[in-house]
Amino acid sequence: MIEDNKTATPISELGEFGLIKILTDPFKPKNPATIKGVGDDCAVIKASDKSYKLVTTDLLVEGIHFNLMYTPLKHLGYKAVTVNLSDIYAMNGTPEQILVSIAISGKFTIEALEELYSGIYHACEKYKVDLIGGDTSTSLTGLMISVTAIGSAAPEKIVYRSGAKPTDIICVSGNLGAAYAGLQVLEREKELFVKEKIQPDLDKYDYILERQLKPEARKDIIELLKKENIQPTSMIDVSDGLSSELMHICSQSETGCRIILENLPIEHQTSWTMDEFSIAAETAVLNGGEDYELLFTVPVSDFEKVKELKDITVIGYITERAEGINSITSDNRLIPLSAQGWNAFKK
Amino acid sequence: MIEDNKTATPISELGEFGLIKILTDPFKPKNPATIKGVGDDCAVIKASDKSYKLVTTDLLVEGIHFNLMYTPLKHLGYKAVTVNLSDIYAMNGTPEQILVSIAISGKFTIEALEELYSGIYHACEKYKVDLIGGDTSTSLTGLMISVTAIGSAAPEKIVYRSGAKPTDIICVSGNLGAAYAGLQVLEREKELFVKEKIQPDLDKYDYILERQLKPEARKDIIELLKKENIQPTSMIDVSDGLSSELMHICSQSETGCRIILENLPIEHQTSWTMDEFSIAAETAVLNGGEDYELLFTVPVSDFEKVKELKDITVIGYITERAEGINSITSDNRLIPLSAQGWNAFKK
Repeated sequence: MIEDNKTATPISELGEFGLIKILTDPFKPKNPATIKGVGDDCAVIKASDKSYKLVTTDLLVEGIHFNLMYTPLKHLGYKAVTVNLSDIYAMNGTPEQILVSIAISGKFTIEALEELYSGIYHACEKYKVDLIGGDTSTSLTGLMISVTAIGSAAPEKIVYRSGAKPTDIICVSGNLGAAYAGLQVLEREKELFVKEKIQPDLDKYDYILERQLKPEARKDIIELLKKENIQPTSMIDVSDGLSSELMHICSQSETGCRIILENLPIEHQTSWTMDEFSIAAETAVLNGGEDYELLFTVPVSDFEKVKELKDITVIGYITERAEGINSITSDNRLIPLSAQGWNAFKK
Repeated sequence: MIEDNKTATPISELGEFGLIKILTDPFKPKNPATIKGVGDDCAVIKASDKSYKLVTTDLLVEGIHFNLMYTPLKHLGYKAVTVNLSDIYAMNGTPEQILVSIAISGKFTIEALEELYSGIYHACEKYKVDLIGGDTSTSLTGLMISVTAIGSAAPEKIVYRSGAKPTDIICVSGNLGAAYAGLQVLEREKELFVKEKIQPDLDKYDYILERQLKPEARKDIIELLKKENIQPTSMIDVSDGLSSELMHICSQSETGCRIILENLPIEHQTSWTMDEFSIAAETAVLNGGEDYELLFTVPVSDFEKVKELKDITVIGYITERAEGINSITSDNRLIPLSAQGWNAFKK
């Protein structure tokens, strides 16, 4: 009765992107309503000639994506929603509905779940999305949250990862590395608490902790670009670190890119926190994750316009593919970017 | 740092339906595109004036919904898809896309996941749906599969749980109780294998085991009803046992019902297997689960038509609410039906 796997390749050998490719490659869309399947921030489904639906789903697993020792359930509920909405915005769409499934172990009380759902409620209120369904189950251990978000967009407004062209300007919203810095602090303080019962004083890390625990989706950036009449040529949200996201855009657009390291937007609190850990802040930006900022490209003709926009930073430009994916240091050295993204399968 | 829940109500006190009600009650749909939120087999979203999208999601958790000791991964992948498609058919819609998220522990190899996905692939081929997205993650223990299915239907063709009217005829497709009987056999043989290393001989249970391990969604019934020009007044799929589903239809339609027990369609293999366990086959039908047949009501004017249809059985009729939810025995006794549905939160 027991499954016997004669061959046994550990999943960590592939990483998440390799695994997804192996598992989903045999599937070829057959329905005419399926416009875009696996491979972008959202799938795209035809609703009518004038409107497409965008669909995305994310899984948050206790012990892997969050630690309940330092994650308030209300923030967790909020984050479970916003990380999905971020994917809808990354397609230049408007999120409208979510479905939320949870698996919970016996240790959770109804009051704890109400906390979780109050965070979900606040995210729904803020971003004007409706909770329309889901599923609930027990689990043998821990909490698992699966959220599916649905949005809509006019077909000609949808922005894919694949539209970047050489000479396009690369922009990013807000600042990067903050969520990663926040995570380092939380993990350090957790260790101190567990080992030495030292209650942490976290006041001075308020900004980066909020970026880690209660991230927002950049609805405001999508609205700003629309108001300024700027249509990005490609876009992705920064969930796995900047390097990984640049790889996605360049590989799907069949281009290279050049990133000007000294242009990377880094908050002061992120910088000095990473100093505490003796890690270069650029590392947090390039290889950290969970910033949920928008990374996008615009035609060079929009350069004058974007460089004046509040909370948007020009960080480089798209090149021919043969030039590779590189960063330039302040003393003009070229450093190739390498990124595996965030590999949940490696410990 | 640790969450301190001052009040603590165990979830098992409420059951799944009570829990869902408490958690989702504060959420009121605000988007004009949201036609129907929580509370039916699918949520309904407006795509255009002529087409609505149907969305449903289900969570399968190892140790709760399936046991890998006797569940082949290929069948599990197939079932994870069909149970969701069943919800789309239960709205009289056509499924078109699915998203599949998995959380897997370190014990899974790539080959094991390929098995799982080959089952998903076969279900996609058979039902002509596209895999358009998902998420993958590690889990600290066991396997978790979350599937979201999307379908479409013309607005006037959608069948809700709420449309049944007194005098409507209650029909069910196929036969009931088989999946529950199959589960009893698998659990018994697992115990024997674990305790006494007795390899089971399962040949004579082939039909009920397939109903449990590899259920189909009743696409054919939806096609048949369309061909016969029968529009059900209400419909639901039988996932939690007939009693529970009748409760849903009657409570949402504000009616009662009367079920003729001797009319319940029960396969011979289901009957004699339940005999082995000294459980009345009606119990498997009324309170077992996972049959994934379609339970629906039609106007009494369609009675002559439906009673001739292959694989559809007339099992009773809708009454005024005040008459309650009852079954009639062959010797004309009235027995009230009671059902909690399948309570995943009680052990």
